[in-house]
Amino acid sequence: KPCRLVEIEQHTDDRGKLSVVEGGSTVGFPIRRVYYLHDTRSGTERGGHAHRALEQLIIAVHGSFTVRLDDGRQRAEYHLDDPGTGLYVGPMVWRDLVDFSAHGVCLVLASQHYDESDYYRNYDDFLRDV
Amino acid sequence: KPCRLVEIEQHTDDRGKLSVVEGGSTVGFPIRRVYYLHDTRSGTERGGHAHRALEQLIIAVHGSFTVRLDDGRQRAEYHLDDPGTGLYVGPMVWRDLVDFSAHGVCLVLASQHYDESDYYRNYDDFLRDV
Repeated sequence: KPCRLVEIEQHTDDRGKLSVVEGGSTVGFPIRRVYYLHDTRSGTERGGHAHRALEQLIIAVHGSFTVRLDDGRQRAEYHLDDPGTGLYVGPMVWRDLVDFSAHGVCLVLASQHYDESDYYRNYDDFLRDV
Repeated sequence: KPCRLVEIEQHTDDRGKLSVVEGGSTVGFPIRRVYYLHDTRSGTERGGHAHRALEQLIIAVHGSFTVRLDDGRQRAEYHLDDPGTGLYVGPMVWRDLVDFSAHGVCLVLASQHYDESDYYRNYDDFLRDV
């Protein structure tokens, strides 16, 4: 499936919560790159691209935002606001990130190192290949 | 060195900030596990252990907290409050995490999958081996 929600292992006690993602087992891909979007201006849109091969797990570790997905045939929208739930996004899915809450932090675990040639940054190019 | 501050690559524009850690190159170890501490109660202490072999990069992706380190000879304290700076902690360093701010989120990138046999959970055992 090009996208799905993934339950993240959580350990809760009176100190708070610890959520853990093991590369390979939790997400089915090795974690080669980790990035996070922060200090995001309210009302800002991010994303606006697709990947040829990259797989990602997207998590709202603080606050919330909405991920809009488009695989060229179907569209789906996920509002992420729970550090215990990740959104897996596979290859060939156009994504936009919108509606960041104040102080929202978006954590992304990615299957590959950065590679500009893996990106579609033009929606029409993406539609032609999908 | 058993610990050091690591500058994290940041891309800033009018949408906000994107901070990225590449496994291997940024931190010198592969990222096999990712976990984050969140919904932490104010005044709580976490940590309270050391690792035989594990390497970690600790990042305050939201809010702030203090990391107290002890390698059996020297102690050091780092107040982390910047998503653009990580704290590398190597093997055989006892760590306590204290003074979490409200809504502080601690992201940890770890070099190994979870392995209970890698932990020292008793400070005297740690001191004996260090």
